[in-house]
Amino acid sequence: MAENSSGAVIPPQAAAVAPVARARGARMAVLIGPEQGAPRFITRRFVLAPGARIPAHRHPTLEHEQVMVRGEMVLGLDAEVRTVRAGDAMYLPPGCAHWYENRTAAEAEFLCIIPRTDGYDTEWLEEPPEGAFPG
Amino acid sequence: MAENSSGAVIPPQAAAVAPVARARGARMAVLIGPEQGAPRFITRRFVLAPGARIPAHRHPTLEHEQVMVRGEMVLGLDAEVRTVRAGDAMYLPPGCAHWYENRTAAEAEFLCIIPRTDGYDTEWLEEPPEGAFPG
Repeated sequence: MAENSSGAVIPPQAAAVAPVARARGARMAVLIGPEQGAPRFITRRFVLAPGARIPAHRHPTLEHEQVMVRGEMVLGLDAEVRTVRAGDAMYLPPGCAHWYENRTAAEAEFLCIIPRTDGYDTEWLEEPPEGAFPG
Repeated sequence: MAENSSGAVIPPQAAAVAPVARARGARMAVLIGPEQGAPRFITRRFVLAPGARIPAHRHPTLEHEQVMVRGEMVLGLDAEVRTVRAGDAMYLPPGCAHWYENRTAAEAEFLCIIPRTDGYDTEWLEEPPEGAFPG
């Protein structure tokens, strides 16, 4: 993958969107990452359709920093269940179990920033929901 | 500063907002950082009032990853001048000169993620604009 070191503007339509594996109704796009030459962290956009669910999982060594951009969703955070809305920020430390569900009639969108590392270990804690994308 | 390792939701009103030094009409809040125990990168929110300007500067060793959340602004990126809008992502590599200006009648908002490092070297390339906050 080409890496460069000049500044770049990435319009929404330039980032490839893919379904999230093992999730229902969730899609993800890498906005800024290795392709732009970003050395240390990667910025991604998630969009959850009404009824979407990303089942519970954790990353033993990776933290997430997230910001809700649009809509509302329910977030499981270890034993807590929180409703988060546009403007809220979320910090998920390494090892924190988490899941997402959109129980509204509108799309929910959040940004999720992760460190750029060689591996991306994920431990799934729940079976894929009905209608999940394979993975 | 306390650091912890549990998951957290940070509502918008919980993040302290401060004027951006040497800039006119710009304010900034750290959403996720050392206070939450974030080890590697820091997520911040910038809001530019109509007429705001953050003058040209560069960070020799630090990259920025940014996403426009609301409104529109003009971004200087080395020799380029780009208009960016809600949904656009921007990558500013270390050493890239940049400035921001809101030429619209509405607020502009973007997220800016930076690495967590000991220093935050900034080289200013332009005097503060008229009406700038001291710094």
